[in-house]
Amino acid sequence: MKKLINNPEKVVEDMLAGFLRAHADILKRSDRDGRAIVRKNVERGKVGIVIGGGSGHKPAFIGYVGDGMADGVAVGNIFASPSPYPIFGAMQDIEQGNGVFLIYGNYSGDCMNFSMAAELAEMEGIEVKQLIVHDDVASAPKEEADRRRGIAGEVFIYKVAGAKAKQGASLEEVYAATHKANEWIRSMGVALSPCSLPQTGKPSFTLGVDEMEIGLGVHGEPGVRRGPLRPAAEVAAELVDCICADMDYTDSDVAVMVNGHGSTSLMELYIVYDAVAKELERRNIRIYRSYVGEYITSLEMGGCSLTMLKLDDELKELIDAPAHTACFHQ
Amino acid sequence: MKKLINNPEKVVEDMLAGFLRAHADILKRSDRDGRAIVRKNVERGKVGIVIGGGSGHKPAFIGYVGDGMADGVAVGNIFASPSPYPIFGAMQDIEQGNGVFLIYGNYSGDCMNFSMAAELAEMEGIEVKQLIVHDDVASAPKEEADRRRGIAGEVFIYKVAGAKAKQGASLEEVYAATHKANEWIRSMGVALSPCSLPQTGKPSFTLGVDEMEIGLGVHGEPGVRRGPLRPAAEVAAELVDCICADMDYTDSDVAVMVNGHGSTSLMELYIVYDAVAKELERRNIRIYRSYVGEYITSLEMGGCSLTMLKLDDELKELIDAPAHTACFHQ
Repeated sequence: MKKLINNPEKVVEDMLAGFLRAHADILKRSDRDGRAIVRKNVERGKVGIVIGGGSGHKPAFIGYVGDGMADGVAVGNIFASPSPYPIFGAMQDIEQGNGVFLIYGNYSGDCMNFSMAAELAEMEGIEVKQLIVHDDVASAPKEEADRRRGIAGEVFIYKVAGAKAKQGASLEEVYAATHKANEWIRSMGVALSPCSLPQTGKPSFTLGVDEMEIGLGVHGEPGVRRGPLRPAAEVAAELVDCICADMDYTDSDVAVMVNGHGSTSLMELYIVYDAVAKELERRNIRIYRSYVGEYITSLEMGGCSLTMLKLDDELKELIDAPAHTACFHQ
Repeated sequence: MKKLINNPEKVVEDMLAGFLRAHADILKRSDRDGRAIVRKNVERGKVGIVIGGGSGHKPAFIGYVGDGMADGVAVGNIFASPSPYPIFGAMQDIEQGNGVFLIYGNYSGDCMNFSMAAELAEMEGIEVKQLIVHDDVASAPKEEADRRRGIAGEVFIYKVAGAKAKQGASLEEVYAATHKANEWIRSMGVALSPCSLPQTGKPSFTLGVDEMEIGLGVHGEPGVRRGPLRPAAEVAAELVDCICADMDYTDSDVAVMVNGHGSTSLMELYIVYDAVAKELERRNIRIYRSYVGEYITSLEMGGCSLTMLKLDDELKELIDAPAHTACFHQ
């Protein structure tokens, strides 16, 4: 697959150079590690929030560093966890004595490297708490929810954590609010077409010309069902079904995200959103706030994911709070 | 090509239903015409701004209706101009006695239909001015600039017009500021892969597996040169070369946009942006403000366009002004 790049081995460096140039008002590279990117102006005394993961998911993760969301990010290679050093570097840069909160998706590399960074930070006297996002209901049964992968729901978790920290909450309070959100969040995706890694140019998986795969992961991990592509309304209904079978959202207020994987047009995402909204209405689930667009992509993969987050009064306030990052504004 | 849709004949209606649901706080459908979408709360006494064009270019055009940009939009079918009636309907809905300003791209259907709508409005006593955007340097030589097509530069024109109107400027003043911007704006694109119309499912053009086409239009109109895909830095240099050969930006402050056509990843767009920025630096052109992302797409087409707008003090102020629409926030 054709890509507008210079050198497949340098896509992350070239992307970072462009990103830092375009968003120099918000972001800077840490002196401690070239793959640690941090905010220029963190509010005084705030609990620090550090996120991160592999590259290729833009606007995730660097696009969510800024006012009201994260304070620092560790940038990995394409679909590969960052090492502990940029994570630790970002933590050191943004910590202000009130602790650092780490948020990352449930992938073995990220779990290992973020935990190692947490240990390094604790040895320096930095108080650390961690939250592992595992919103993808397709990736393991309910009884093994701890094995589930983190997908687009991570964005809601950053939003909750960032808003809570900005209110002046303690590390314990930031953890409590995001932990609640993490319990109340579910996602599920559908893939229509693969992406290709810059280094190989080869598709990450193959699907027939009229096939879709329900539950396929953001790095091409196997899903739960492969079959003929169905109309958007049926696909939306299946995603809602699977999510609501896993958690009862009846009579709840929810935040909803329809997230494009990369090459699926915004037109299609709004068509899916309309079908999702009808399904939720039928189930007496009220959409309090909605997000339709590309939030966590997989390069140029085709398809989308649906995320639902149950909201109480605290979470409504945190989801509604203003945020201004390179790629998220409200 | 696979799409998440329900019925190829109803994609625009289904998309509109989802869009209006998701953005009901900002937008409503006009009672006058189902394809006229207008703002719910237009500031009193403001010059009205109506935009529009074919569908399939999301976030254009409906995504730019809101505070600080347009007040109404006429929504056409996929890649087809809206008829005069939704344009006229939107004008009637949002006009407040101080005139209506129409902005659209230089396509024969749009020119005909917007002009007819203007005539209908004038017969009703509404004062009207029009601006036709023709920023694509690839689509005709400089001597025939009036034949050039409008592409991603339209977004800057909406921004300038919306900010000027919000300042309380007269119709004449809004026209003058946008006319200046229209004279100082240039764009050029490169395509890597086609999109397909929902109705046919067929690619809009064909390119070899290692080919790109410079200057290809947003509906697949022929470009100026087809050749092997080059590294991003060379592609960026060629786009900058063509634009700067058409207008001298040396020693100017510019707003720059790297706009993705649909399936090209944000990672690639930032790689292109970095290369563009280096080229401009070399030419003593100063980037005052930059935009990297999907602003005017062609469904899932691959590739991007570069837009440059020369800025004086007035245009800097207008480009910098806050704006909040469904898809544009600053």
